[in-house]
Amino acid sequence: MIHLYTYTTPNGRKPAILLEELGLPYTLHKVDLGKGEQFSPEFVALNPNSKIPAIKDEDTGVTVFESGAILIYLAEKTEKLLPTDAASRAQVMAWLMFQMAGVGPMFGQLGHFRRSAPEPIEYAINRYEQEALRLVKVLNRQLQERDFIAGEYSIADIATYPWVAAYEYVGLSLDPFPHVQAWLERVGQRPAVQTGMAILTPEFKSDLAQ
Amino acid sequence: MIHLYTYTTPNGRKPAILLEELGLPYTLHKVDLGKGEQFSPEFVALNPNSKIPAIKDEDTGVTVFESGAILIYLAEKTEKLLPTDAASRAQVMAWLMFQMAGVGPMFGQLGHFRRSAPEPIEYAINRYEQEALRLVKVLNRQLQERDFIAGEYSIADIATYPWVAAYEYVGLSLDPFPHVQAWLERVGQRPAVQTGMAILTPEFKSDLAQ
Repeated sequence: MIHLYTYTTPNGRKPAILLEELGLPYTLHKVDLGKGEQFSPEFVALNPNSKIPAIKDEDTGVTVFESGAILIYLAEKTEKLLPTDAASRAQVMAWLMFQMAGVGPMFGQLGHFRRSAPEPIEYAINRYEQEALRLVKVLNRQLQERDFIAGEYSIADIATYPWVAAYEYVGLSLDPFPHVQAWLERVGQRPAVQTGMAILTPEFKSDLAQ
Repeated sequence: MIHLYTYTTPNGRKPAILLEELGLPYTLHKVDLGKGEQFSPEFVALNPNSKIPAIKDEDTGVTVFESGAILIYLAEKTEKLLPTDAASRAQVMAWLMFQMAGVGPMFGQLGHFRRSAPEPIEYAINRYEQEALRLVKVLNRQLQERDFIAGEYSIADIATYPWVAAYEYVGLSLDPFPHVQAWLERVGQRPAVQTGMAILTPEFKSDLAQ
């Protein structure tokens, strides 16, 4: 049994999608960021950085934080969605990092300056919009000749989907990026993705989650 | 033989430090960001995202981009500096991601708004200074009872060192963080770290690099 401590954010949804894909039973624990529950001593013991998601694997006693590390841990535990041959594995890891270090932080900053900052700062909005669009353009080129980011469906897609799916929230248009649009539809049709995206909402329904 | 395509930035230095630690022979290829060489067709073939570093492993034909993925690839190739037991491995991966998704992007934004933006934007400088200091505080607490970030010296330290070592460049003081200071000194004394930090400067001298 995996305990998943999470919330309704792109990073928070990634491990739920993967658990659903892998068919691993899990218990959902809501960490309400609005109430500051990520700063509780119990949660800080799981993640010293006070960010969701985090997991505890009851079978092994292992705890993991950072969504990217959780995806790697679960993929290695089950030997699925992360290839073991060096060349394919390196591509999946590279695109996972592209999401963790690029898409996530830059979409995050764009969302902040567009929706949360106390007043609009044009320079910052432009900066993060340009960089987010540049990253989506890179992704579009990558998906031109592939169904999934690193070839086969992998944790690189699972990491990237919830962020790119939030394109309207951060005020981006995907009109110039048909291959990204097709990929969003392709990935979004997977039952595991639909279930994982719905965690902690009234629409959530899973045979695996307790 | 590993071909390393890189430049004199924190991310660019990480693989050089690891190659030196592992004793792997390598050829250094300078990708001059000032001249836009990261946009050349040759480099884009290595990294579609036009960012350094990237590697090509002549022994296997494998190419890897994103510094975090390169560290994982080289550590797995040599079975060093990344534990194989699940619990320790998860901790190293988590702190590697903490650097890739947190320390790197946030120090990067702070550096931009403090040093490169056309005019000072107080809100943005404060935002990234507060977040960078919060991350260093998390690191300081982690290092209070450990010599290295994830216990044993690992790729998590190698990823984090070049960023935190740039604290003066981004205008941070480490005075409140004695454990981070001690760790910087501890890691900075390693010959491999000193060599890797000096790539592409007149001070660089390595028995491994061609």
